[in-house]
Amino acid sequence: DDIWTVVDEHHLEGTYPFEDFRDALEFTYDVGELAEDEWHHPDIHLEWGEVTIEMWTHKIDGLHKTDFVMAARMDRIHEEYAPE
Amino acid sequence: DDIWTVVDEHHLEGTYPFEDFRDALEFTYDVGELAEDEWHHPDIHLEWGEVTIEMWTHKIDGLHKTDFVMAARMDRIHEEYAPE
Repeated sequence: DDIWTVVDEHHLEGTYPFEDFRDALEFTYDVGELAEDEWHHPDIHLEWGEVTIEMWTHKIDGLHKTDFVMAARMDRIHEEYAPE
Repeated sequence: DDIWTVVDEHHLEGTYPFEDFRDALEFTYDVGELAEDEWHHPDIHLEWGEVTIEMWTHKIDGLHKTDFVMAARMDRIHEEYAPE
């Protein structure tokens, strides 16, 4: 996985590429639905052709297994948008 | 309008408050649809209870009337989510 990095031993940050704004928007919505389902809410930065996620577990102000599970699920969602 | 400020005489930045993540997510999607309709695409930063928009006209690398019209339209969309 070359999307995610651990920043300051505190949070995950990952940037997903997209072909255009529309795909980035739909992915953002998908991630938002996942966040609501799991009640685990990342920050999501949407711009043309790119979505950047910042995620950590607020209760412990750091990283928990949940964050890595969520990251893997976002990777799988992103595969649906892959240009190849 | 106390949402928007002009930053560096270059772009508009505005932060909208929301009651929760769900409303912020739905607003993000609405703004994304507006962006696609008008083919004018801001950066959108979604987090719990808050959406921050950065917007300028890339062709002139600065602000154009379109940006202010878009900002006003986002204000009207946001009214649908107002807690009062």
